Amino acid sequence: MLDAKHIKALENMVGKENVYSDKAHLIAYSYDATRTRYEPDAVVFPRNEEDVSHILAYCNEHKIVITPRGAGSGFTGGALPTNGGITLAMEKHMNKILEIDMENMVAVVQPGVVNMDLQKAAEEVGLFYPPDPASESYSTLGGNVSENAGGMRAAKYGITKDYVMALRAVRPNGDIIRAGKRTIKDVAGYNIAGILIASEGTLAVITEITLKLIPKPKYTKAYMGIFPSVEDAMNAVFKSLAAGANPVAMEFMDDLVVHALKEKLGIELPENAGGLLIGDVDGNVPEEVEFQLATLEKSFKENGAQDFVVAHNAKERDELWVARRNASPVITIYGSKKLNEDISVPRSMLPVALKRIYEIGHKYGFKVPCFGHAGDGNIHVNVMVDGSDPKQLEEGHHCIEEIFELVVEMGGTLSGEHGIGTAKAPFMSIAFNEEEIQLFKDLKHAFDPNNILNPGKMALP
Amino acid sequence: MLDAKHIKALENMVGKENVYSDKAHLIAYSYDATRTRYEPDAVVFPRNEEDVSHILAYCNEHKIVITPRGAGSGFTGGALPTNGGITLAMEKHMNKILEIDMENMVAVVQPGVVNMDLQKAAEEVGLFYPPDPASESYSTLGGNVSENAGGMRAAKYGITKDYVMALRAVRPNGDIIRAGKRTIKDVAGYNIAGILIASEGTLAVITEITLKLIPKPKYTKAYMGIFPSVEDAMNAVFKSLAAGANPVAMEFMDDLVVHALKEKLGIELPENAGGLLIGDVDGNVPEEVEFQLATLEKSFKENGAQDFVVAHNAKERDELWVARRNASPVITIYGSKKLNEDISVPRSMLPVALKRIYEIGHKYGFKVPCFGHAGDGNIHVNVMVDGSDPKQLEEGHHCIEEIFELVVEMGGTLSGEHGIGTAKAPFMSIAFNEEEIQLFKDLKHAFDPNNILNPGKMALP
Repeated sequence: MLDAKHIKALENMVGKENVYSDKAHLIAYSYDATRTRYEPDAVVFPRNEEDVSHILAYCNEHKIVITPRGAGSGFTGGALPTNGGITLAMEKHMNKILEIDMENMVAVVQPGVVNMDLQKAAEEVGLFYPPDPASESYSTLGGNVSENAGGMRAAKYGITKDYVMALRAVRPNGDIIRAGKRTIKDVAGYNIAGILIASEGTLAVITEITLKLIPKPKYTKAYMGIFPSVEDAMNAVFKSLAAGANPVAMEFMDDLVVHALKEKLGIELPENAGGLLIGDVDGNVPEEVEFQLATLEKSFKENGAQDFVVAHNAKERDELWVARRNASPVITIYGSKKLNEDISVPRSMLPVALKRIYEIGHKYGFKVPCFGHAGDGNIHVNVMVDGSDPKQLEEGHHCIEEIFELVVEMGGTLSGEHGIGTAKAPFMSIAFNEEEIQLFKDLKHAFDPNNILNPGKMALP
Repeated sequence: MLDAKHIKALENMVGKENVYSDKAHLIAYSYDATRTRYEPDAVVFPRNEEDVSHILAYCNEHKIVITPRGAGSGFTGGALPTNGGITLAMEKHMNKILEIDMENMVAVVQPGVVNMDLQKAAEEVGLFYPPDPASESYSTLGGNVSENAGGMRAAKYGITKDYVMALRAVRPNGDIIRAGKRTIKDVAGYNIAGILIASEGTLAVITEITLKLIPKPKYTKAYMGIFPSVEDAMNAVFKSLAAGANPVAMEFMDDLVVHALKEKLGIELPENAGGLLIGDVDGNVPEEVEFQLATLEKSFKENGAQDFVVAHNAKERDELWVARRNASPVITIYGSKKLNEDISVPRSMLPVALKRIYEIGHKYGFKVPCFGHAGDGNIHVNVMVDGSDPKQLEEGHHCIEEIFELVVEMGGTLSGEHGIGTAKAPFMSIAFNEEEIQLFKDLKHAFDPNNILNPGKMALP
């Protein structure tokens, strides 16, 4: 519990109307997309960077723990106040697009801006903000930066970090830091923005983000490759890209997902489709789009594709994409709870990785439907268990642990885009040795010697 | 001077043939491209990562200063052993391309590999490593990563940091750290690779670099826009890019450079050319190349271009580029010594920035020919002085300081691609406030508590 004098001090700083410790607020801010719950002791809505600075300096002095929070849509617990203290919620006041600079193709936003709102604002002036996490319509850019969010368009356009030009942030001691510039090149001083990206709110509180925008290519078409097996599809992924294809997205669904789509939604998909690859290609000229489609088709067919379908208009494109959009909800036919992990491996390892993941699932007796961003090697692996059976849940976690060991052995990572937070913290020792974990601790200590910022995440104290 | 027992210990570690403290070696490793000289006490050539780890652990224990060194081609003193100690030279043993992984389009190299050697090796298998600093034929990739080297192709293809997927590095205490993965997405743990890039050898010694390669577009053409004034050319830069052009390069030369090219080399250039923009465009299909040229031509002409020239074959392309390639040497007609700075501003600020830079030069009575990578806002500003006149040298430095103040005021940076090192260290307080410098110090301390790695650089102790 937070002492009444601290509540009072916070109210004096940011106004009574921006500090809450009533039960309703504490419950409302107790969860995220992991569906686990930890109540904070207070929820504070800073009005601006100065507020953030005052709050942090005060909490640092009094060793009060702070958890920064965007939309609370993260999958790994980054925004969960696991140690109580203050939840610093950005969505109420610090949610403005401050500027769209068309001349330099740059947007300046506050951390609480929803990703899709920026995408729309950019599009209105003929520009494009590519990072599109599945949570794009509700997740915030502060959260996107803190977790280094990916998305489907990463295959061609990269991830959040590729768009962050500059940040403003507040250190736990209240110091306001400017990192980076509205310039393409900047090599003066350490790359502070680079270390804050993906740091899950453990090093500093981000108060302003300068993001690169790009011109949007005029022409887009969607494609679907239908393969007899997952292995064929996975071979086609890395071979088509190595052959020079550069699709906007290359999304994968396995046979289990295809079956669930037919069974649950009656979506028409080819009989005996063992694996699908769906995506968009784009270009400034129609010939570039055709070049991409031809490169993909050739490579797909060389790697066993039974069919290669191109959507020639918006309606056909929607029909192709409906399968991918529904992949996540339909797989509940295999179990009431999915243990969802977003592993990433070098693309050439995908065929073997998927084969061995299914074998591990089989050993435990679980179905493991897989789908996701194959074009960048990032696959959502879903171990389906009966959520009401504690034994299955425990077994499921062992299954996940084996999958992580496999992935790391193959040169892959625990997380392609969801982060570590609390959910993957137990697995950090699979991926990092003691010296590497020690460096993380040293860095954390350098930024936050009193350990007030989001403690207990990323397997840190 | 390094105690004889330390020399002996180093010899035991890496072999007598890899440790030198004779005068010839000390002189040979005393300089870089800044042409200032500091002799180390010994030059050591590590054979591998294990050697680096042993050397660092030993030096950390005995508080012996270490300066890592690639080719010594840096412009800001990053490889100068300003505090003596050991120069750790990578070019003798740690200079191998370990792997070109065509399936994942990745190269794994040791830090002493010359940039151009990787470019060629990639090209031999149909792939492309875009970062092309002007030093590409002799600078090493370890140095490129440590300084976050840019180049001409940055306008479309980005800079070194955009290609670093993973690093191996050794901390001053000897700990070997793996950072990043051969995967497009990786959000597990802090972004250690991100903070090592551009850290100028002050945090850790890089021992292995994993770099992204990309497919090389098949079609390329070169263009030149001829403008009546620098201001027109600078307007054309940001307006053409905002209009959707995405050239590989967009290089600028001002009227002083054009005059020097004619005078010194007799290169044929249009009369009254007040500013030139030269570059390449590329694409997978000829239509994309034509789209780029048309977009540029339209925008250039809308912004006052007198002429827009396209090179249709290799010979014509060479003729266009000869001007840009000779820009740096010819400007010595304006003074025996150039004080060369690589400022970078948001592109829309280029017209005003250049105007005011000339005004500052005029005030001091110096010619300030400018050229460089206008497409990404990065301009090489050359204050030309008589190198034999101490008064002019001093005045020149005041002139540079005023230029830096202007650049920072405009949202720009002290350095687009050369780094800070010793040369720009005196100007760090123009760009960063006390809190920001303190964070740099805290970070440095977290990595290197005994301050043995390249001390005295970047305005750090």
